[in-house]
Amino acid sequence: MNRAQITGIGAHVPAREIPNSYFNETLGEDVDAWLRENVNITKRYWCNENESVADLCEIAAKKAMTDAGIGPEDIDLLVISTDTPEYISPSTASVIQDRLRLKNAGTFDLNTACAGFVTAMDVAAKYISADDRYKHILVIGGYAMSKYLNQKDKKTVTLFADGAGAVVMSAQEGASGWLTSDLQTRGEYNGWMGIYGGATHQPVTAEVLANHDHQLKFVHKFPKELNPKMWTEMALDICKRLNKKPDDFDHFFITQLNFNSINETMDNLGVCREKAHMVMDQYGYTGSACIPMALEDAYKNKKLKKGDLLMFIGSGGGLAFAAAAVQY
Amino acid sequence: MNRAQITGIGAHVPAREIPNSYFNETLGEDVDAWLRENVNITKRYWCNENESVADLCEIAAKKAMTDAGIGPEDIDLLVISTDTPEYISPSTASVIQDRLRLKNAGTFDLNTACAGFVTAMDVAAKYISADDRYKHILVIGGYAMSKYLNQKDKKTVTLFADGAGAVVMSAQEGASGWLTSDLQTRGEYNGWMGIYGGATHQPVTAEVLANHDHQLKFVHKFPKELNPKMWTEMALDICKRLNKKPDDFDHFFITQLNFNSINETMDNLGVCREKAHMVMDQYGYTGSACIPMALEDAYKNKKLKKGDLLMFIGSGGGLAFAAAAVQY
Repeated sequence: MNRAQITGIGAHVPAREIPNSYFNETLGEDVDAWLRENVNITKRYWCNENESVADLCEIAAKKAMTDAGIGPEDIDLLVISTDTPEYISPSTASVIQDRLRLKNAGTFDLNTACAGFVTAMDVAAKYISADDRYKHILVIGGYAMSKYLNQKDKKTVTLFADGAGAVVMSAQEGASGWLTSDLQTRGEYNGWMGIYGGATHQPVTAEVLANHDHQLKFVHKFPKELNPKMWTEMALDICKRLNKKPDDFDHFFITQLNFNSINETMDNLGVCREKAHMVMDQYGYTGSACIPMALEDAYKNKKLKKGDLLMFIGSGGGLAFAAAAVQY
Repeated sequence: MNRAQITGIGAHVPAREIPNSYFNETLGEDVDAWLRENVNITKRYWCNENESVADLCEIAAKKAMTDAGIGPEDIDLLVISTDTPEYISPSTASVIQDRLRLKNAGTFDLNTACAGFVTAMDVAAKYISADDRYKHILVIGGYAMSKYLNQKDKKTVTLFADGAGAVVMSAQEGASGWLTSDLQTRGEYNGWMGIYGGATHQPVTAEVLANHDHQLKFVHKFPKELNPKMWTEMALDICKRLNKKPDDFDHFFITQLNFNSINETMDNLGVCREKAHMVMDQYGYTGSACIPMALEDAYKNKKLKKGDLLMFIGSGGGLAFAAAAVQY
């Protein structure tokens, strides 16, 4: 049985930089100090008016394919994880398949909010292990949440940002690569945060627009212990399955929403905080793109060595959680 | 390596029946004769104002689980195929996970338009074969396109309808179950049919509403030979891989958009037309739900026998295509 290995990594953000000071004017108050101290965000990037998620995915994907040293015709499957798609239908993946001329690739989008990228890598790993027709799979996490933000909602507009990250996963023999994974959902939180209008539950109308129901809303405040608790439990379960200790892992790539939650998780696991690579200070919160963007940042800074043990943990609306261990 | 077998089947449509005559009034012309002669549709079902896709998925899923003889806690993964989701975010699957109390199930939605259900079954089959932690996976195809229809657009409003179908796929040893599959995309058609407004390419505004860009549109007319040609080629390729003849298959479940395209495919394959089970006369076109709805109709009419060879072929916007062979 083949195992999936990460053989190419790429990422991209739009050119339009939005410093914290941008919100001084739009919100009429100074949010910079709060953002730096509480979520460690100094700036983020947003699409301009003529950019959307496919533009980000396209560039990230090209970089990952170049990094892997493969051409468009080598890709057997394209999976895009996003809850900010290019269109409602068809899939964003069909758009990218066309733009990149991936003529041999089947396509689909996967949505489990910000747990989507780790889940999509898991799906790709399953295809490679279960079916030897799949040699190279392109997995993209794309996020253009700026398009769904209420510019007057301080709770969302200051946090969420745009970007894309991509990996090529390739079939390899041997013991390294995708080791094990876990998907969990706490569906009782599905109404707590989301974009609730604009789909079949509440089709868009003038009233929906006026209420901003077609935009991202935090409906309830999540218990702040929830993420660190779930992340710790999932990491420990994966360690147990692999007969490893948390500190045997070299790098942790965890959803880049709140650096305190990541630090708390690392403390729970008894692993030094520096092993959790973070990029939210530069990029804000980029949802289904944040984990491959953090991976790419570590990669381009020469932090990853062949044989390193990587732990991925994503969580997002739903609430959905995905964790995976990879020997790079 | 375990193989996935279909162990439970269920389907559901809303109570609100819309006969062809409904459109006499809303469109101001008689479309009944054209619909009967050209697409073999006599009626369809639409959600009422207080229903949406999750309501349909919930009931279809319960029926499939009852049919499989398993409880909510037995489901290890829930995949919902839809391009008419409950919300933009989070996933429809997280809603259903909560409603059905599938506490051990990870969740995600999959969107590759109307090729989604066969693709989602393929994903489930890969999980079962690649990872022995997955024993039972619930796969749902849900469709509530009525919520995205322009009531004055004759080309779409008369065809599209609502419904849901579900299967439980379970790990089994032995040679029967999921045999092989194929995913293909012709991304050059991604702009031909879809719901192009309301996502990141064109966020909803009053102007988008006025132009009906948040609703389903046929932008170009598809070459009518495209589906039969692709379906025939994919079926023949699967036969070749399995060393079977098309006529060795007992049932064909093909996207229920146009009965002429299905008949043409069966003629191309040299298989009697009766082996392609059709339900569009009763239900209209139900997109990502139509294939499990056809499967359920054949099942409840006692057409399926253990050991039967089933061919599934789905196609939809993107254009995306998915085919699979299953020994039931």
